[in-house]
Amino acid sequence: MSDKHIVSGFDRDLASIEASVAQLGSMARDALHDAVQACILRDTQIAARVQAGDKALDQLETQTRMATIKLLALRAPSAVDLRFVLAVLEICAHLERCGDYAKNIAKRSLALGPHGQLIGTDRALLRMSDAVTQMLADALAAFLDRDTDKARAVIEADLDTDQRYNSLFRGLLTYMMEDPRNITAGMHLHFVAKNLERIGDRATGIAEQVVYHVTGEIPDQERPREDPYTSPDGRMNGQN
Amino acid sequence: MSDKHIVSGFDRDLASIEASVAQLGSMARDALHDAVQACILRDTQIAARVQAGDKALDQLETQTRMATIKLLALRAPSAVDLRFVLAVLEICAHLERCGDYAKNIAKRSLALGPHGQLIGTDRALLRMSDAVTQMLADALAAFLDRDTDKARAVIEADLDTDQRYNSLFRGLLTYMMEDPRNITAGMHLHFVAKNLERIGDRATGIAEQVVYHVTGEIPDQERPREDPYTSPDGRMNGQN
Repeated sequence: MSDKHIVSGFDRDLASIEASVAQLGSMARDALHDAVQACILRDTQIAARVQAGDKALDQLETQTRMATIKLLALRAPSAVDLRFVLAVLEICAHLERCGDYAKNIAKRSLALGPHGQLIGTDRALLRMSDAVTQMLADALAAFLDRDTDKARAVIEADLDTDQRYNSLFRGLLTYMMEDPRNITAGMHLHFVAKNLERIGDRATGIAEQVVYHVTGEIPDQERPREDPYTSPDGRMNGQN
Repeated sequence: MSDKHIVSGFDRDLASIEASVAQLGSMARDALHDAVQACILRDTQIAARVQAGDKALDQLETQTRMATIKLLALRAPSAVDLRFVLAVLEICAHLERCGDYAKNIAKRSLALGPHGQLIGTDRALLRMSDAVTQMLADALAAFLDRDTDKARAVIEADLDTDQRYNSLFRGLLTYMMEDPRNITAGMHLHFVAKNLERIGDRATGIAEQVVYHVTGEIPDQERPREDPYTSPDGRMNGQN
């Protein structure tokens, strides 16, 4: 067997793992989209579909992780290929957790069913969901294109998601303080918002791995963020 | 250089990484202890110490991660040594996040300052904090002793943490519904409880890596847990 043969087998393995990561990313985005729809429409059928879909995502994640570890064990890759392997393991874990958050959001729609809607909250949740979906899409595109500029833009965008979350949190707090009958719905919707914010964190984590893969550097862990406890006017933020 | 020489250098590297992981675990436990004290005593000095300490934890985590990746690149370990390396990378990430959660709890104590105490909540938070501290200690001991029985006990214990969290969540909800003036303190304390619950999840993640390191199998991801949205009497849980 020639060296060339070995190398091209290695390249095939890398390409196959990369395709699995792309598919995982696509599954996570679909799950997120459906979960938020289920939540806003109080649609239990969509919610059930998201919950069932998470099993498939978990399975593909396990397969991809196993294939990646096998590659690591058999090929002992070095330099950029080793960073690829390490980045893929982290990215897989992030996407698996995104699927879990989507599942949590979908389940929450079942609990929300009987509770009234809080004016304006649905629209704010949809906007936040669109923003984190875009972050996920961009982080995956950055991974596939080895595009560190795009990755850094995702890391920057997380500040915006945190602000959206804080604004939603304060809105919910106001509803709850105005009328205790809003507390239950407010707490449920707060969990939905928190899960969206955590998907934003995961997209950021993926983007950081893209920078690591391409450059060997991990971006500064102290990401730009709003002051996590009080906004400039002294009101409480939910950021955590 | 003889094979023996190479092997003992390798063993030294492994031992050094293991010692760093033990130290990270100890730092995370101290941070957690201090953070909960800061929160209950509303002590801003302890809170500041936790925040400063998190920088040291992050630095050691980065150093340990780098040393582990270097070992992976230079020694191309296989079988149980490869699993050790992969487990260490995951465990480091879990401990770094535990430090972040402790920092969040400490910061929350600053926001709690002016708000009244909710009867019984401090004691429940302390009990929950003791439980997750024990989980962290046991998970680290299981790692150092390669003790899968102890690791599996940690995974089981997470169910208990989830129940404590749910009980605390319902208690806070009751206070908030009784009197809207409790809402702000209730929301802050809920974040503290949520961070403790997430430290429990991280201890569980460490325990899963111990099982992986020793056996090559990842324990079933579908951990035992309470039904996440309603308890048997139909009340809402905060579990997410």
